[in-house]
Amino acid sequence: MVLTPLEKASILVEALPYIRKFSGQTVVIKYGGRAMISDELERGVITDCILLKLVGIHPVIVHGGGKAIDEMLERLGMKTGFVHGQRITDEKTMEVVEMVLAGKVNKEIVTLINQLGGKGIGLCGKDAGLITARKKTIPAPPGEEPVDLGCVGEVERINPEIIETVKDEGYIPVIAPIGVGDDGRSYNINADYVAGAVAAALKANKLVLLTDVEGIFADRNDPGSLLSVIRVDEVPDLIARGIIAGGMIPKVECCVHALENGVGRTHIIDGRILHSILLEVFTDEGVGTMVVKE
Amino acid sequence: MVLTPLEKASILVEALPYIRKFSGQTVVIKYGGRAMISDELERGVITDCILLKLVGIHPVIVHGGGKAIDEMLERLGMKTGFVHGQRITDEKTMEVVEMVLAGKVNKEIVTLINQLGGKGIGLCGKDAGLITARKKTIPAPPGEEPVDLGCVGEVERINPEIIETVKDEGYIPVIAPIGVGDDGRSYNINADYVAGAVAAALKANKLVLLTDVEGIFADRNDPGSLLSVIRVDEVPDLIARGIIAGGMIPKVECCVHALENGVGRTHIIDGRILHSILLEVFTDEGVGTMVVKE
Amino acid sequence: MVLTPLEKASILVEALPYIRKFSGQTVVIKYGGRAMISDELERGVITDCILLKLVGIHPVIVHGGGKAIDEMLERLGMKTGFVHGQRITDEKTMEVVEMVLAGKVNKEIVTLINQLGGKGIGLCGKDAGLITARKKTIPAPPGEEPVDLGCVGEVERINPEIIETVKDEGYIPVIAPIGVGDDGRSYNINADYVAGAVAAALKANKLVLLTDVEGIFADRNDPGSLLSVIRVDEVPDLIARGIIAGGMIPKVECCVHALENGVGRTHIIDGRILHSILLEVFTDEGVGTMVVKE
Amino acid sequence: MVLTPLEKASILVEALPYIRKFSGQTVVIKYGGRAMISDELERGVITDCILLKLVGIHPVIVHGGGKAIDEMLERLGMKTGFVHGQRITDEKTMEVVEMVLAGKVNKEIVTLINQLGGKGIGLCGKDAGLITARKKTIPAPPGEEPVDLGCVGEVERINPEIIETVKDEGYIPVIAPIGVGDDGRSYNINADYVAGAVAAALKANKLVLLTDVEGIFADRNDPGSLLSVIRVDEVPDLIARGIIAGGMIPKVECCVHALENGVGRTHIIDGRILHSILLEVFTDEGVGTMVVKE
Amino acid sequence: MVLTPLEKASILVEALPYIRKFSGQTVVIKYGGRAMISDELERGVITDCILLKLVGIHPVIVHGGGKAIDEMLERLGMKTGFVHGQRITDEKTMEVVEMVLAGKVNKEIVTLINQLGGKGIGLCGKDAGLITARKKTIPAPPGEEPVDLGCVGEVERINPEIIETVKDEGYIPVIAPIGVGDDGRSYNINADYVAGAVAAALKANKLVLLTDVEGIFADRNDPGSLLSVIRVDEVPDLIARGIIAGGMIPKVECCVHALENGVGRTHIIDGRILHSILLEVFTDEGVGTMVVKE
Amino acid sequence: MVLTPLEKASILVEALPYIRKFSGQTVVIKYGGRAMISDELERGVITDCILLKLVGIHPVIVHGGGKAIDEMLERLGMKTGFVHGQRITDEKTMEVVEMVLAGKVNKEIVTLINQLGGKGIGLCGKDAGLITARKKTIPAPPGEEPVDLGCVGEVERINPEIIETVKDEGYIPVIAPIGVGDDGRSYNINADYVAGAVAAALKANKLVLLTDVEGIFADRNDPGSLLSVIRVDEVPDLIARGIIAGGMIPKVECCVHALENGVGRTHIIDGRILHSILLEVFTDEGVGTMVVKE
Repeated sequence: MVLTPLEKASILVEALPYIRKFSGQTVVIKYGGRAMISDELERGVITDCILLKLVGIHPVIVHGGGKAIDEMLERLGMKTGFVHGQRITDEKTMEVVEMVLAGKVNKEIVTLINQLGGKGIGLCGKDAGLITARKKTIPAPPGEEPVDLGCVGEVERINPEIIETVKDEGYIPVIAPIGVGDDGRSYNINADYVAGAVAAALKANKLVLLTDVEGIFADRNDPGSLLSVIRVDEVPDLIARGIIAGGMIPKVECCVHALENGVGRTHIIDGRILHSILLEVFTDEGVGTMVVKE
Repeated sequence: MVLTPLEKASILVEALPYIRKFSGQTVVIKYGGRAMISDELERGVITDCILLKLVGIHPVIVHGGGKAIDEMLERLGMKTGFVHGQRITDEKTMEVVEMVLAGKVNKEIVTLINQLGGKGIGLCGKDAGLITARKKTIPAPPGEEPVDLGCVGEVERINPEIIETVKDEGYIPVIAPIGVGDDGRSYNINADYVAGAVAAALKANKLVLLTDVEGIFADRNDPGSLLSVIRVDEVPDLIARGIIAGGMIPKVECCVHALENGVGRTHIIDGRILHSILLEVFTDEGVGTMVVKE
Repeated sequence: MVLTPLEKASILVEALPYIRKFSGQTVVIKYGGRAMISDELERGVITDCILLKLVGIHPVIVHGGGKAIDEMLERLGMKTGFVHGQRITDEKTMEVVEMVLAGKVNKEIVTLINQLGGKGIGLCGKDAGLITARKKTIPAPPGEEPVDLGCVGEVERINPEIIETVKDEGYIPVIAPIGVGDDGRSYNINADYVAGAVAAALKANKLVLLTDVEGIFADRNDPGSLLSVIRVDEVPDLIARGIIAGGMIPKVECCVHALENGVGRTHIIDGRILHSILLEVFTDEGVGTMVVKE
Repeated sequence: MVLTPLEKASILVEALPYIRKFSGQTVVIKYGGRAMISDELERGVITDCILLKLVGIHPVIVHGGGKAIDEMLERLGMKTGFVHGQRITDEKTMEVVEMVLAGKVNKEIVTLINQLGGKGIGLCGKDAGLITARKKTIPAPPGEEPVDLGCVGEVERINPEIIETVKDEGYIPVIAPIGVGDDGRSYNINADYVAGAVAAALKANKLVLLTDVEGIFADRNDPGSLLSVIRVDEVPDLIARGIIAGGMIPKVECCVHALENGVGRTHIIDGRILHSILLEVFTDEGVGTMVVKE
Repeated sequence: MVLTPLEKASILVEALPYIRKFSGQTVVIKYGGRAMISDELERGVITDCILLKLVGIHPVIVHGGGKAIDEMLERLGMKTGFVHGQRITDEKTMEVVEMVLAGKVNKEIVTLINQLGGKGIGLCGKDAGLITARKKTIPAPPGEEPVDLGCVGEVERINPEIIETVKDEGYIPVIAPIGVGDDGRSYNINADYVAGAVAAALKANKLVLLTDVEGIFADRNDPGSLLSVIRVDEVPDLIARGIIAGGMIPKVECCVHALENGVGRTHIIDGRILHSILLEVFTDEGVGTMVVKE
Repeated sequence: MVLTPLEKASILVEALPYIRKFSGQTVVIKYGGRAMISDELERGVITDCILLKLVGIHPVIVHGGGKAIDEMLERLGMKTGFVHGQRITDEKTMEVVEMVLAGKVNKEIVTLINQLGGKGIGLCGKDAGLITARKKTIPAPPGEEPVDLGCVGEVERINPEIIETVKDEGYIPVIAPIGVGDDGRSYNINADYVAGAVAAALKANKLVLLTDVEGIFADRNDPGSLLSVIRVDEVPDLIARGIIAGGMIPKVECCVHALENGVGRTHIIDGRILHSILLEVFTDEGVGTMVVKE
């Protein structure tokens, strides 16, 4: 498709009300899944974030990195098990998880931001006391042994001071989901939860979770049944009816938690679509499913 | 033409390097001609300026208003003559010129900025001592009587303090080309010259003159011969050869003067094209003719 | 009268407590009537304002301009009617009113401020969204047809941001009483009301209305019966008894409204006296009638 | 003399250009002689300083205190000798000098400033390392024994930091002319010299020395021969001719030194005239003799 | 004792948690008694204050000076009586008290601070309206004549503005306990009370009273019975039982008053111990008796 | 050794002049060798840095990590060769080097800072474009094949902006010596060189290189021949005479380079001594060898 210059200009003009609306606001983006693996999608996400920054919107990136961890563990000949979708993480494994997330994945994202013209800065939860974590305990189901997930943690508290500092100086903070206990031990935390907690601590205006699905469907078999908006008070019923199910449940819970702690709007969007963040922010239709308070 | 959301996003992404390049810079825009008469073009110009402001570029508008002046003079039954394209402006006429420019045209532009979501503020050269003017004298050609143009003035000096103050507070300054003599008398000044002088005083990065032509052509009869770049040192020869001629001469002189006083680049563009300012700023090709120092 | 230097110095010293008392405060001055017509009185008012500014008091001027409007309408051969002291203002008339107020009277005041050594900046209600207006509706008296005053408006809200910005940078803001509706239409508003509303929005310390009378008299026929202070709670009775009557009623209402919205003191003073503003601010006796809350 | 309010206002208006001219400037005033002894003159000096401060001019007071020192020494039964107009100051005497100047005279001036509505702060050269002094040595005239003046000092260097700090916070600094040697010893310094050195360190715009004479006369016996302006390059000749003589010589030297170190203008005025400081600053004629560079 | 460098470093490291804990806090120190008389102790106190300042803690010194006053009064042949431990201070005596405290003792402390590398500034209650005082009245015991203490005063109010100003600019304020009445009269105030009132006005974190005793003992005859902590609610009982008695009563009252007005902790410590302030701030055991709210 | 509180206080007092001298200054510390391996030494280094920060000195840490890299490479079964003391680093190896330095060692140091009460933030050269690197080329000795060291780099330029930002907000920056090429490739850079380049870019007052030797000896066999100061102009001769030799040569070159680029003083000290940084900064003797410009 070839556009005339005028057609291009019109598109820019269309974005005007969105730029005005979100100017000065903070958007926390959970970056993971397919969008981290495809080079094209990755450049798309980073470009979107730089564009947001340039027009006065502050993106904060929280990333995952399961695939890179798997590869490194395999090269090291280390095996890990999963329970309820969470990696059983002993201390040796944790060491690798942390190195890969904070030393490799995080820095690659930062480098790409810098190469594409932004100013990225990589942080993990240990930097500036950003994320204090505690061991995650999973209650044993009746009749089963409780499972010890090892160094899997959950967020105890967020100290957003360093994010505020660098955000206001023009940087895009990129956060690896590693927490540190009051005892100095490292914990691996689900990146969705970290994103939600960071958004809550920053009183962000938006939380955007990039996923590998299009959103939540009223009828899984009907591609036309995408729910574009869900209210917090509808969530319990949607879970009960199996419409929100599986891996989508923690993501929605994460949105609900963020909304209850001062975040404006939350979005579960399809990271497999190029520039899905821009589409979400700069078009009326949005993409994926928005979870809102009311 | 219907664009998919992705196509729209791509356009935004294309603008990224330009936004980055011009962020924080000042662009002085001479707004006049057809673009002031057509409602659609007027909204285009104002929308472009608001968009620039939102992405961190500071537009400063200097406007003309010949047509509105003519209408009011006609309603008042006052006749005016023109010499060398300049209105002979006696004191009575000047009173009307000033009222129309500073009290009507200027405030209409400001109102439109505010309605479209920007923060406009109208100024004339009297406000905050912005433009000090002196009477323009035109040497009589040999064998002719010298012509007294009355209250036609030229810029003596610019005090850009008020522009800096309001620009940094998020306002778009809109300037009517009225100057005031050290004796308190009002002078009507050519808006191109005011734009050039304001750009020089602000050390603006760009001066953009909106005109009713496409630019400067090497061969007036060949639409394909548009000169997209002219160097300052080529100007004398181009005038000598008649390629720069008529009303284009003062515009080019205005660009040359601005360039010699610290302005980065100057552009003579076609205000009859919708969103021509955005096209100039946000595309590689630009529009019209650019005059540069080297 | 020839004063010795010492006598002059003593006068300066007498002003000391007043300067100290009002330092840093804001005084909104409705400037109109005879004081706008006499050159000497005009220079007096402007000089007073510049002096206030220099000693650290912030004057904000709101001006009228009925006489200049009448002259221009007459030159244009346009007739206007008045109802209850308010000009019936159709759209054509409004166009002239606006040009004269914002493009002529306003800029003349600004120019005089600058010539006398201050830093004036002219604004109308359209600049920076200063005055949002709505159409003024006048309930029809029983048995009469309601009168449509056309573009006569009343203040809907004041956005004092631009005044604060320029005031703190050393400028004296001069405001033409033109408002703009949410629909972009212009409205002509009574300058007293604008002054009152601006004073309220700024939480000004003083509102001073310059009039062509000495103040309010207990007995119209007794020049010695000037009421130097009126309390807000006395106003209804004074109106009932006809002591506040005619054109004085809206002025007093304006004072009452300002006092109820945070303005410290309000004054109705005689603009026909040279330097009446200085006399009001810098002497114990004051001049005219002060309306206070308690 | 009874002035009408209008006449009073006119006087204020006359001061306008002087206020404007000196706004933001610093004036160092040597306060001593008769003006310290008469209650009326003292209140005059302090009132003048407060008025200057209120209209945006920064007075800095350096005071003497010979009379109060004499009284206290007498009460203590201590005798002191004088050589060339300078008190021979042994350590015991110095202790008294310092207590009287820094603990009594200084604090009385400060208290009066505060009572009259200003914000005074008393400093001596020891505070914040303001004045570093060295012992003053007087070369013995041929055939005479050199005289040891004891703790009489001269200025080694001024650290104006504390004056800048308090001046900008609205305080009037009041300085006792006590210096401190690098060895911690106290020195009594001539207040004229301290005033000159402080003015030089502050790059003050004016240095005003209050004296008990009207100024410098071309002919001592002709009251009409007051020299209102003396240029620095005329001084040697005026001294040679005996026109500048006696105690006036060090005062003029002090002015010359200040002028050579960046002070704008220096004035030797008659402190016996009420409000002589105001008269000097706020009238064209000035009072006394001005010493200027050119 | 000869320490290895490593041992020295260890000491510094031990201080770390205290520096961290008190960083940015304000400590008001009543400086008097033996610590003012011994050169070694005096250097100790001043060195401690400079060290506190350097590590980010803000000391404010309030000093006494009874001994220096006695000496000067004796040299002047003036006798004074004492009632209930307070000097009967007639006007002549007050003049001497003020000169000695504000002009001698205060400036000596400041000079020592500057010599030891700090930046001291001397203030008395007259400077910048710091201490407003009123005459202290002592109710006559039954059957006795009331005693007029003359110029003995008590604190009416503290204006801490000047302390805040200079404190934040790196200065150590040194305060002589002289107050000024609304009538401009000087009052001599107990330095403990001034310290307490200044601490309260500054919402200081610590008030430290240097005394000539080790602290408060449960049993006066048992050196091992030092009470290291007293709660405010225990004070009445301790006074009733005679454990807090004599000159200690006003000191404890002073602490109680400070605690009730926002001061964090108060300490009565032994000024006869070298570096007792450092020991109090930088060791866990502290020295002397701490009075706390709960 | 048991010290009395007074002895402890005396040590603190001894540090006073050093704290004063270095307050506000920046000290870049190359942290490596034995001091990174021993837990006790590590806590010593970190404690020293926190203490410096608390007393107003800004430490910036650049760390190595060879031992941790070796361990991880061994666990991964990867072998590396060394040439001239530099690791031959292919891309696979570089990936591990980066993860270990930026993801493990760096974050451990940060965590320790936070646990001991400071505010650490970990950075590598990729963050905020801190270190731009280029491939290091080693000229082949005559008759030898040039050796390709792979991803071994040298500093091209430092962008110290992020260090300035976080340093002024109270953080201790901890830098992993990873650089990024303009092509986005990672480079492993010698930590000494990074420390030197960072010190130069910051115009640091001190560069401190922690080593595993006591310093430079005039006679390697004479422990008493430690050279405590070396001037830059002596270096070539000392190298020629073999006094500076082996691994010490690049360290000294690093110091020379830093001194030539604006660093005040440089120190090569023995990291095996507990609290050697404090000893260097806070004692007159210092430790190790200082290299100075003159």
